[in-house]
Amino acid sequence: VTRSGIVTLTSDFGTRDGYVGALKAAVLSRFGQARLVDLAHELEPGDIAAASRALAQAAPRFPPGTVHLAVVDPGVGSERRGLALALGEQLYVGPDNGLFSGVLDGASSVEAHQLANAALFAAPVSPTFHGRDVFGPVAGYLAAGGALVEVGPAVAGDLVRLAARVPTRQAGALEGVVVHVDRFGNLVTNLPESAAARGVSLEVAGQSLALSRSYADAAPGGLVAVVGSTGQIEIAVRGGSALSRLGRGVGLVVILRAPRESA
Amino acid sequence: VTRSGIVTLTSDFGTRDGYVGALKAAVLSRFGQARLVDLAHELEPGDIAAASRALAQAAPRFPPGTVHLAVVDPGVGSERRGLALALGEQLYVGPDNGLFSGVLDGASSVEAHQLANAALFAAPVSPTFHGRDVFGPVAGYLAAGGALVEVGPAVAGDLVRLAARVPTRQAGALEGVVVHVDRFGNLVTNLPESAAARGVSLEVAGQSLALSRSYADAAPGGLVAVVGSTGQIEIAVRGGSALSRLGRGVGLVVILRAPRESA
Amino acid sequence: VTRSGIVTLTSDFGTRDGYVGALKAAVLSRFGQARLVDLAHELEPGDIAAASRALAQAAPRFPPGTVHLAVVDPGVGSERRGLALALGEQLYVGPDNGLFSGVLDGASSVEAHQLANAALFAAPVSPTFHGRDVFGPVAGYLAAGGALVEVGPAVAGDLVRLAARVPTRQAGALEGVVVHVDRFGNLVTNLPESAAARGVSLEVAGQSLALSRSYADAAPGGLVAVVGSTGQIEIAVRGGSALSRLGRGVGLVVILRAPRESA
Repeated sequence: VTRSGIVTLTSDFGTRDGYVGALKAAVLSRFGQARLVDLAHELEPGDIAAASRALAQAAPRFPPGTVHLAVVDPGVGSERRGLALALGEQLYVGPDNGLFSGVLDGASSVEAHQLANAALFAAPVSPTFHGRDVFGPVAGYLAAGGALVEVGPAVAGDLVRLAARVPTRQAGALEGVVVHVDRFGNLVTNLPESAAARGVSLEVAGQSLALSRSYADAAPGGLVAVVGSTGQIEIAVRGGSALSRLGRGVGLVVILRAPRESA
Repeated sequence: VTRSGIVTLTSDFGTRDGYVGALKAAVLSRFGQARLVDLAHELEPGDIAAASRALAQAAPRFPPGTVHLAVVDPGVGSERRGLALALGEQLYVGPDNGLFSGVLDGASSVEAHQLANAALFAAPVSPTFHGRDVFGPVAGYLAAGGALVEVGPAVAGDLVRLAARVPTRQAGALEGVVVHVDRFGNLVTNLPESAAARGVSLEVAGQSLALSRSYADAAPGGLVAVVGSTGQIEIAVRGGSALSRLGRGVGLVVILRAPRESA
Repeated sequence: VTRSGIVTLTSDFGTRDGYVGALKAAVLSRFGQARLVDLAHELEPGDIAAASRALAQAAPRFPPGTVHLAVVDPGVGSERRGLALALGEQLYVGPDNGLFSGVLDGASSVEAHQLANAALFAAPVSPTFHGRDVFGPVAGYLAAGGALVEVGPAVAGDLVRLAARVPTRQAGALEGVVVHVDRFGNLVTNLPESAAARGVSLEVAGQSLALSRSYADAAPGGLVAVVGSTGQIEIAVRGGSALSRLGRGVGLVVILRAPRESA
């Protein structure tokens, strides 16, 4: 793939330390013309699932040949591998810890290489910060047009994947669960858009909701269920936080019931 | 206006989800050479007034032909319009919900168009994320040199504006109010620089303060009133937070008294 | 030094106000082709030591000729000077308040100038926001290739430096202290890598720890001491926060003991 010159950055580093800066310097010192684009740095420390989700929401939408550098890496210094991936027309660099589960799910093609070519790394490599010393330099190398095969040997299909939580089917109903709470306090479930037939109802925390088109279909302060922008059903409060309202987040059960047959 | 190629981004998305990334991808997939500049993403969810204020502080100072993409959009999915504006030499894209009140106030010229040309949008348009599917693509289109008239019909002067809170005049005094609390805990009032004549005093929370030139004119830990960088009088604590000290924020009354006549 | 065209930004402004945007506009309105790179904006208000540390972690690693604009400036409006520095191949602009202590420590060469050439500033200069009106414009000027000597007179070696906290040597031991807590709750000490000989042990909060290679060498949830990526010994919890675990942060004593002689 021809490179776009863009390198996106996703991490749990926050922006109250020098880690994000060191990561960016690592990319730029390898490829001074890289165009850096911050995706998300305020992910919860070590929250691989949230990172996977944020990447899946955004990365595949970038211009072809963009390199996505993702560092949520609680296992740094362990035996976990480093990866460079080509998924469809996007490139990814980061640890093999499940971070890429979301983008792997939607990928039209997968080419995976383990990071092994130490000539591409900074020297010495700190055992506590591979973002700076391994992933950043490799991202810069790839963004500058470097070949994926140069980073290390191809890896077969044994990439680490987060266990998907799929809804379970019951008599006339689908039992889902909240898998993510966003900054607005919206409760994102694993119930897919494809289940959102006309007339379904949702049961959550003892309440029953019809499926609405958008947040604005609720009264101000009202609880509402909609198909969110990632194609998953979510529970929201118009102008407020469903997390605060219901006092429950990830793991909360949400049941989707098919419309009653008309008699 | 010739375009600068710069697209600024202002939102209440935070950076712990994929929303900012999806917004940026939307711009770049329409105009790959856009130079993205983050203004503010940690605005309180739905805080249109704070967004309007942040935009007014920064946007008019950018190089001519910059596109400012602003998405604080609690009414997404309702009938509220989407707008593209040319205000003086700056361009703006976002919802018609008052977000642009601040920049409209200072504009030397106003050209407003309603977003209606669906050929410029992503398809399908999610009813919950117009940032990604409507505003982002249109911002990319404009930044690439697209014409404002192409986005939709011109709109007359009925743009949504936030109600301005103006100080009220009383015998020898001006009664203002805190309209914003910044990250430092500074209490920004609606009392304008023009009222800050030599010798005025300010009454706030039972205390009387002279007007100082800068924070540094107070003793460490001392309460101080200054003309802030946006031309509004603010109450601050040197090396501390006036919000914490006074325990009050937006809505707190601040009275400006003219200097006593010398007898 | 030839300029890289990159301007990095470090501040305590957060991103819930318009300050960061105004700072960026100040740079770009002076040098429209500047490539802006955010380092850290969520530094604690007025925390000069954390800012100095973040800069030292990241700035020297950027391509030569990069301009680092740093604004943590609690003394704005006082007599404190503004500075432009060339340290090795990097350039810096900001207040003379200790912010540059960290990068000065590691500099191969130092050229310092006081900001005095008002023709380079915005007019008028707000006494409360020199980032926007002084430092930002000067950073843009330098990034565009402007000469350091043009900003004002050279300054001798009397730059403000934060007092360094060095470990104290005791019989067979080195008494250090936690000097920084990062976003992960890792406790960074002033004990240098050079003291990390094989077999040393660390005493902290009544516990004794061997020095490990990486976080991953501890059991999940276990306390661990490692040499961190900045070359200082740090106390961490694998998959957790040492700050939460120990309930103590900056100032906590950490004693490094030499290995026992084998009998």
